Amino acid sequence: MSLFDPLFRWDALQELFADRARLQAMLDFEAALARAEAATGVIPARAAEAIVAKCRVDRIEIEALAADAARAGNLAIPLVAQLTGLVARDDPEAARFVHWGATSQDAIDTGLVLQLRPALERIDGELRRLADALARLAAEHRATPMVARTWMQQALPTTFGLKAAGWLDAVTRARERLGEVRRRALVLQFGGAVGTLAALGSRGSDVAAALASELQLRLPDVPWHAHRDRIAEIGGALGLGTGTLGKIARDVALCAQTEIGELAEPEAEGRGGSSTLPHKRNPVASAIVLSAAARVPGLVATLLGAMDQEHERGLGGWQAEWETLPEIVGLTGGALHHLTNAIVGLRLDTARMRANLEATQGAIFAEAVQMALGSALGRAQAHERIASACRAARTEGRQLREVLAADETIARLLSPEELDRLFDPAAYLGEAGRFVERVLAAHAAVRARE
Amino acid sequence: MSLFDPLFRWDALQELFADRARLQAMLDFEAALARAEAATGVIPARAAEAIVAKCRVDRIEIEALAADAARAGNLAIPLVAQLTGLVARDDPEAARFVHWGATSQDAIDTGLVLQLRPALERIDGELRRLADALARLAAEHRATPMVARTWMQQALPTTFGLKAAGWLDAVTRARERLGEVRRRALVLQFGGAVGTLAALGSRGSDVAAALASELQLRLPDVPWHAHRDRIAEIGGALGLGTGTLGKIARDVALCAQTEIGELAEPEAEGRGGSSTLPHKRNPVASAIVLSAAARVPGLVATLLGAMDQEHERGLGGWQAEWETLPEIVGLTGGALHHLTNAIVGLRLDTARMRANLEATQGAIFAEAVQMALGSALGRAQAHERIASACRAARTEGRQLREVLAADETIARLLSPEELDRLFDPAAYLGEAGRFVERVLAAHAAVRARE
Amino acid sequence: MSLFDPLFRWDALQELFADRARLQAMLDFEAALARAEAATGVIPARAAEAIVAKCRVDRIEIEALAADAARAGNLAIPLVAQLTGLVARDDPEAARFVHWGATSQDAIDTGLVLQLRPALERIDGELRRLADALARLAAEHRATPMVARTWMQQALPTTFGLKAAGWLDAVTRARERLGEVRRRALVLQFGGAVGTLAALGSRGSDVAAALASELQLRLPDVPWHAHRDRIAEIGGALGLGTGTLGKIARDVALCAQTEIGELAEPEAEGRGGSSTLPHKRNPVASAIVLSAAARVPGLVATLLGAMDQEHERGLGGWQAEWETLPEIVGLTGGALHHLTNAIVGLRLDTARMRANLEATQGAIFAEAVQMALGSALGRAQAHERIASACRAARTEGRQLREVLAADETIARLLSPEELDRLFDPAAYLGEAGRFVERVLAAHAAVRARE
Amino acid sequence: MSLFDPLFRWDALQELFADRARLQAMLDFEAALARAEAATGVIPARAAEAIVAKCRVDRIEIEALAADAARAGNLAIPLVAQLTGLVARDDPEAARFVHWGATSQDAIDTGLVLQLRPALERIDGELRRLADALARLAAEHRATPMVARTWMQQALPTTFGLKAAGWLDAVTRARERLGEVRRRALVLQFGGAVGTLAALGSRGSDVAAALASELQLRLPDVPWHAHRDRIAEIGGALGLGTGTLGKIARDVALCAQTEIGELAEPEAEGRGGSSTLPHKRNPVASAIVLSAAARVPGLVATLLGAMDQEHERGLGGWQAEWETLPEIVGLTGGALHHLTNAIVGLRLDTARMRANLEATQGAIFAEAVQMALGSALGRAQAHERIASACRAARTEGRQLREVLAADETIARLLSPEELDRLFDPAAYLGEAGRFVERVLAAHAAVRARE
Repeated sequence: MSLFDPLFRWDALQELFADRARLQAMLDFEAALARAEAATGVIPARAAEAIVAKCRVDRIEIEALAADAARAGNLAIPLVAQLTGLVARDDPEAARFVHWGATSQDAIDTGLVLQLRPALERIDGELRRLADALARLAAEHRATPMVARTWMQQALPTTFGLKAAGWLDAVTRARERLGEVRRRALVLQFGGAVGTLAALGSRGSDVAAALASELQLRLPDVPWHAHRDRIAEIGGALGLGTGTLGKIARDVALCAQTEIGELAEPEAEGRGGSSTLPHKRNPVASAIVLSAAARVPGLVATLLGAMDQEHERGLGGWQAEWETLPEIVGLTGGALHHLTNAIVGLRLDTARMRANLEATQGAIFAEAVQMALGSALGRAQAHERIASACRAARTEGRQLREVLAADETIARLLSPEELDRLFDPAAYLGEAGRFVERVLAAHAAVRARE
Repeated sequence: MSLFDPLFRWDALQELFADRARLQAMLDFEAALARAEAATGVIPARAAEAIVAKCRVDRIEIEALAADAARAGNLAIPLVAQLTGLVARDDPEAARFVHWGATSQDAIDTGLVLQLRPALERIDGELRRLADALARLAAEHRATPMVARTWMQQALPTTFGLKAAGWLDAVTRARERLGEVRRRALVLQFGGAVGTLAALGSRGSDVAAALASELQLRLPDVPWHAHRDRIAEIGGALGLGTGTLGKIARDVALCAQTEIGELAEPEAEGRGGSSTLPHKRNPVASAIVLSAAARVPGLVATLLGAMDQEHERGLGGWQAEWETLPEIVGLTGGALHHLTNAIVGLRLDTARMRANLEATQGAIFAEAVQMALGSALGRAQAHERIASACRAARTEGRQLREVLAADETIARLLSPEELDRLFDPAAYLGEAGRFVERVLAAHAAVRARE
Repeated sequence: MSLFDPLFRWDALQELFADRARLQAMLDFEAALARAEAATGVIPARAAEAIVAKCRVDRIEIEALAADAARAGNLAIPLVAQLTGLVARDDPEAARFVHWGATSQDAIDTGLVLQLRPALERIDGELRRLADALARLAAEHRATPMVARTWMQQALPTTFGLKAAGWLDAVTRARERLGEVRRRALVLQFGGAVGTLAALGSRGSDVAAALASELQLRLPDVPWHAHRDRIAEIGGALGLGTGTLGKIARDVALCAQTEIGELAEPEAEGRGGSSTLPHKRNPVASAIVLSAAARVPGLVATLLGAMDQEHERGLGGWQAEWETLPEIVGLTGGALHHLTNAIVGLRLDTARMRANLEATQGAIFAEAVQMALGSALGRAQAHERIASACRAARTEGRQLREVLAADETIARLLSPEELDRLFDPAAYLGEAGRFVERVLAAHAAVRARE
Repeated sequence: MSLFDPLFRWDALQELFADRARLQAMLDFEAALARAEAATGVIPARAAEAIVAKCRVDRIEIEALAADAARAGNLAIPLVAQLTGLVARDDPEAARFVHWGATSQDAIDTGLVLQLRPALERIDGELRRLADALARLAAEHRATPMVARTWMQQALPTTFGLKAAGWLDAVTRARERLGEVRRRALVLQFGGAVGTLAALGSRGSDVAAALASELQLRLPDVPWHAHRDRIAEIGGALGLGTGTLGKIARDVALCAQTEIGELAEPEAEGRGGSSTLPHKRNPVASAIVLSAAARVPGLVATLLGAMDQEHERGLGGWQAEWETLPEIVGLTGGALHHLTNAIVGLRLDTARMRANLEATQGAIFAEAVQMALGSALGRAQAHERIASACRAARTEGRQLREVLAADETIARLLSPEELDRLFDPAAYLGEAGRFVERVLAAHAAVRARE
């Protein structure tokens, strides 16, 4: 564990990408390969047993392996060497058949896929927990009025329910995309030195099929050593997810500003304090999520930029992926975990929401009045008249409602009661409620299928 | 048209993203909105007719619009203003109803979607043309031997058919992804000022449904003004596609090196010459594709990084998309078009392919011998023995086959005939042929469904 | 001009990077080359005159050139071809000597440098205008109190003068960096086909020196066709500058929020309105600057990623620069110009600044009290005591000053007068004034040297 | 140490960025602060001694600290808490004065600067070692002919000395830039909670000056908590350096291709082997350098994109730097160290270089002939005539020299002896030698000043 891991990452994922887990995943490949080759009669069953017995990371000398990897250029070569040595100690005959017909990249890529499979499953589960929490917020607050802001300026009333529903809708799409990517990208890598499986003579396809079956991975039509779109698309889907998490965190952080005060992250002992300011409660989760949203795009670009891998195995591009994709997984997972906790415990101050609706002395109801006048005056003329009333109200420090009531043309067109209604936030929410319903229904449908 | 457009872009896409096309797409939104509002009784049918009649970009004063946009902060405000003026000249009553209940972003985003729809369709068509060309190459050359290279070093024999099949397999995935994205991302944007459609009172949903139907766009559950994952995922899918194009171009450029000479881009008058060197034939298409592959990742990162848009409409992030996504489309399309032409006319020098198989004095057949010896000696011992023979052959400038024949242990295990067979590239292709078949079958299945 | 140019770019730079300007810069190279070669006796003086006479972009057929460039792979080949044709019409002898001994990249790179020279000078001038405006703000408001915010939470008092001084300090560094880059990167490119100037026999160095002198460019030690660090570092320096502009715009946009209202961009007719909301005044300049700050980093990454150019001239990497660096210049310049205008006309609401200091019921003065108590109680105990008082004040809706006054321990240590002073923002500004002075002095020193 | 550290990083830098080193650097800040405050009479000398005595990382419980950091949002808060506890155990009075007047970011940023100072010094030292090795190569091979390649096609003769000189020239600029950045960016961070040093009353500036002096860091005009251009420019300078390393590695990898064989990385036991192919010698160092060149640009973009930090301390942007800049340092350092070792032991095959000059049957001498004919025929006509001869030679498989000798026009203008000379690579090297001299002289001048 490194110092920043608890801050930026989620331990449920970190354990899957620890050094030992990475090696074990490669050893799982080697074990499954031995089994598949025994099952297809390519190597003796006894040899397979001897090999499988040694495919345990606790037998591996990791420091030596790391040093050898720097010379060899990848992890598989020294790992296979150590494994062969371990097998040979007990059964020199069997040692001949370690890694039989495979290439380093087969072990490395398939090992990565074996790590990604549970990782993406856990991420999906956490996205589901986030979606459920958002659905609760949307349902509970479907009628809670707050101000909507565009270009960081107060615009019109909306509801917190609609804001939460918008977040949920995007999270639902993130899960949908992740599902597509998991189906397409989590496939076996097995091609031998150059993707022909030539070392296995006529048995390559049989072994490949048995190996895929052993590992319960889909068998692709062709090995993909130098075609990295699957790897890059996993990064891309996580990048899109992190972007959505960033959008939610940005909203939370803005609404948590001292001067706005509508939302707050959950409080806890030692959380979000300051080393010097006793009154501070910093939105730590938002900061973590926003930092991930700032970091992941560049990492996704790295994966995309590394796709032009040379010939049958790349020089530089492939190696650029090794730490980059796990980093994307780690940052996305950390952001997700922190944000989910923050949303589950999110504190709303509905009184501040209501108070903030008053901040513009009525100007945020200007559109409502304009639409009411529009059928009589036309959109453009109504727009201009109201804009001028807004300027007057602002300059003179008056309520817009008063300024309008004092305008004879307007007074002729709108009664005091009509004006009152136009300045009621609850009366100018349009389809907000219906939109919330639709998003909740879509969420429920997804959950019902699970 | 700008100077670099013919070099980096494809005119079939550029016409869709020209200034006039962009404005027309927004006017198409305004016209459809008027029709939808007339159909739902929100505005008079006569007004809709008057509006629709003016929704033609040739009526718009573009320079003035651009200057006004710089003040207003977006294109829709001055466009709506000009449109309103045009309508008002003939029918002041109707002018009231221009852009009724909509917001700038509704017009801008939906306009963009209306541009993207044909653009992605053309890209898919060109990907199909590329896939067909690759399928022809894979089929024709399924048995054409060439050397496979890993880490930019000769490794083993393979076939050009398998190389082409690998390219095709990746292009097929690019089309699959693009299909998913088109289904998910090409949806209507219509939410009014803050995404509630409040200005339309109780008619918002009806108008939205009618509008979606007018434009033949899918209606999303909720407006998505500040949720930009759909935009970013279009960029991401194109980025993955460009990455695959870059991989193909990298292979072509490497195989076209003077010293390798296995592939060449099609020749044409004035193509790939030098301003000073009379003998040069530069691989221009590869350069263009590789430059796109270098440029698109950073643009995708921009879209991902801009996703944390504030509240109900972003400040900066949204604006960052306006030129970025069209640029991704343009670069991807240009790369695709140039590469497809290059692949359609690709020149193969199969004699050079065969000659290059001889370049290592037999060392690329080392694995074949090693596997043949492996069952007798074990993989590790065989590996070491052959590696040492390779070193000897290299140092002494001899053929590996000779060195091995002179090794008594090996001579005992392998007869001269067996050795001959082990040094025949056609005999060490493993599943290459079968892999080609599978990829071609998958391609045929896709094409049969179209 | 394209639709978005007035919004995102600055016309003073756009004119330098228009298609015609780009070609003219290359023609300026060709003319200077002819003169230099005449001056060194490499070509006849008469030929140079004939060539120079035709080096005018208004003679060039641009559409044909663009189409030919797509085939040739760069702009120089068809430009040289057209120029040769023009010269040949009047003086076939002279036409022999067009582009004598040069390569396409010499014309393209040097042309770019000739465009960058005035562009960077104009950017520096505008940065100076920005710095001057910031210096005025810092000086005028060195004692204007406002609240400082960390983690987007109110923290302590500061002054607007210090905020402006922080902006100025960073702008000063941006100018310093730009100066270094201009000195190092704006150098002649002249190496002939592969950087040896072999085509000029023994006269290469003489011609190069004369050419550098003609163009008033520094002569580098060696041609740099495939070493692109100079190009990338120009992009990097502009990227750092844009980052600083983005920081300033972020602050302005946050302070311009409806609920904060401390700053506003200058008002102007048609500026920052909404297509539907009559009361809106959107911070358009901030949006533009923030969009540039979101876009430029990915473009800088493209330049950095494209640096691994092959051998003596790159394939793909070089081409990736052609539009990217001008785009960085354009976006930086546009952001700079818009921000400078916004800062020159920036509106301050010092009353809101003062009012916002009251928003936390005194909690922002907590550190002051803590430090006052610290020498008696120790930092940790004081911190804890005050944090608890803050919680009490917040929960009970009381002023922190009252809560503290009611605490006997504290009352014993701090008199009411002392407490009053601790809750005076002007009394807790530390070195703010002195920091402002230092930054202003540094700015004045820079300006005095100019 | 993690599995990939020996592969991608350099242990001389990794030790500077280990968890413990990071904490120690922050403790060094705290110790120096205590000393500076004692020296200026702000805290008792005895307290400073007590604090300084505990500022040792071996006293810190790192796992607990990491867990607390995840709650607090940064490392400084729990570190200060543990330090305070340690001091309090021995001297409760002194514990009051731990971190007196400082803020978390002061400790974190200054700590980072204290790590960067030796790191950049070591990087500069390794760049110097690389430069020296390149200078030796350039000097030794100033006259070694090889073919120059543009667009990945053989173009003309050059020398390996010139290639090495081009590399050296770029490395020299990398050192120059790094020097500028070290001078500008390695400064003290000390501003207290919001950058005013208010907690120190009137003593802030004195303490700051004493602290800078204690740490031997330059004192900036103003704290820079939310102005991150210094951090980003360090990343940028390293990014430019990595780009240059990538360029060198790209050239090495291309020249090491089996079919070219002009360069090879040094051989060593276990280096660059394959898990299955006994004959392979993979260019591992090049792969590592190229992978760094693919990864660093996205990380630099992250730093640039994170510069828009809010108000007086950012939310998300600052946090995004914490792992990103050390990662850039680590990848750059690793690439540098591996490349330097590869260059120091670089193997040249000058016979292959000479043989490759023959690969085009003389076409690479076409320009020489063209220039020789140019004064008689004009550049354009000569270009066309030679281009046609090149096509004939290629099509008919003849030597270009023969084709030309058989052309009567040419035979009239060039004697057989002249033709012979034109086909001698050593006779067409132009200024290559002089360029090498200049670069070596510049290198010697830099080294003489050191």
